Amino acid sequence: MKNKLYVIGIGPGDPELLTLKAVRVIKESPVLCVPKGREEGSSLALSIAQKAVRLDGKEIIEAHFPMVKTRAQNLPTGQAGTEHRAQTEAKEVLDDKWGEIAETILRSLKQGSDVAFLTLGDPTIYSTFFYLYDKLLELQPGLDIEIIPGVSSINASAARANFSLGLGNESIAILPANYLDNLKDTLDQFDTVVLMKVNKVLDEIVKLLREMELISRAVCVSRAGMEDEKIYRDITKIKQEGLNYFSMVIVRK
Amino acid sequence: MKNKLYVIGIGPGDPELLTLKAVRVIKESPVLCVPKGREEGSSLALSIAQKAVRLDGKEIIEAHFPMVKTRAQNLPTGQAGTEHRAQTEAKEVLDDKWGEIAETILRSLKQGSDVAFLTLGDPTIYSTFFYLYDKLLELQPGLDIEIIPGVSSINASAARANFSLGLGNESIAILPANYLDNLKDTLDQFDTVVLMKVNKVLDEIVKLLREMELISRAVCVSRAGMEDEKIYRDITKIKQEGLNYFSMVIVRK
Repeated sequence: MKNKLYVIGIGPGDPELLTLKAVRVIKESPVLCVPKGREEGSSLALSIAQKAVRLDGKEIIEAHFPMVKTRAQNLPTGQAGTEHRAQTEAKEVLDDKWGEIAETILRSLKQGSDVAFLTLGDPTIYSTFFYLYDKLLELQPGLDIEIIPGVSSINASAARANFSLGLGNESIAILPANYLDNLKDTLDQFDTVVLMKVNKVLDEIVKLLREMELISRAVCVSRAGMEDEKIYRDITKIKQEGLNYFSMVIVRK
Repeated sequence: MKNKLYVIGIGPGDPELLTLKAVRVIKESPVLCVPKGREEGSSLALSIAQKAVRLDGKEIIEAHFPMVKTRAQNLPTGQAGTEHRAQTEAKEVLDDKWGEIAETILRSLKQGSDVAFLTLGDPTIYSTFFYLYDKLLELQPGLDIEIIPGVSSINASAARANFSLGLGNESIAILPANYLDNLKDTLDQFDTVVLMKVNKVLDEIVKLLREMELISRAVCVSRAGMEDEKIYRDITKIKQEGLNYFSMVIVRK
């Protein structure tokens, strides 16, 4: 197969944060594949790309990736088993879904078009694309896939808060915040800790940072670079219930 | 002061990885400030930007940042004191140097121009700019500084190697590799470990990864996205002496 799959990071949300390469490759690709979180919803990645590039005449494949928890959190013992079974089933549903999307992409490639798969932020960091990657290569060994990096929401959030993530010999840890078990140790060991998707666990984080006297070293950035971006320099003032899914806390000691 | 300092991440080296915003702001800024590592050398950031944007007629301020180690490594006891004194002196030299650059930037801003400071990769991650940041605000409290994020070399390296840095609930650690003390623990605790600037310590890293049976999980990327980029999928084959300064190892368990 001579056609190529491009996986393009379109950045955190500001259409001006697309790279020149992202714009060129989107322009040149007759088929775009865009992920979306809800069957009936629209694709955020598509709506951002649309503000930077004219997409008229392109074929758009909307790939619905249902959201699913992939690891049990700290649940009471009784619930963990049920949760585990529910997750195994959910994983199988997802696996079928990715199989379908992979086949659709391969069909377009076989019909003679390059395909561009758009991802929010950067494709290598917590992006849905890598769930597809193995599937694609399993169905079509040797498939030519080029990943075009983008501006990650982590760098964009730090930029908006005028925070450095690291300088010189400093170390950085990035943790999905729904997995807080080792957070204290990590805060002890690293100069900077980035906590992703804090919206469901912010109160716990605030409590721990208070105990460790690190509360003044933290900033929370929600929807960096988007129109409704928010920067909270005092994270004790945030109401957890109201916090957006695209929110992260950066602690810099 | 109504003028603004823009700090622009121009990405890892490929001129097409500048963002639309970087290109626009560089075009609109009459004065550019570019860092360079050697007094007599040229600025790598400038040469990359030049391939994406016409710079004719702009005033270019070249800021020479001498390289300096900022923390003692594992030296024999006798040497540590000498090293420490040498570093304290070097830090003072650097501090003077940053003071000079900050004053030059402020002079341009006062004379009525916006200034764009270019950095390789992303400004928030191991970039020289943050050494200037405090100095600038000390000399001009309330100075308007906007940081424009860019594609980091970490994301670009992972993309070139078709490696995911993290998925779902996985954790990521980023360590400058000249500070290896806790590397084993970090490799135990994190799903992905990124080691920056491995060129002087690669042999040690290879030894440890072999012992931990992680050697097949590592990739080394040198000068990601530049013309002389190299990707080493078997890091035991690399000769440390020949390895470029812009090289990193990514270990994904």
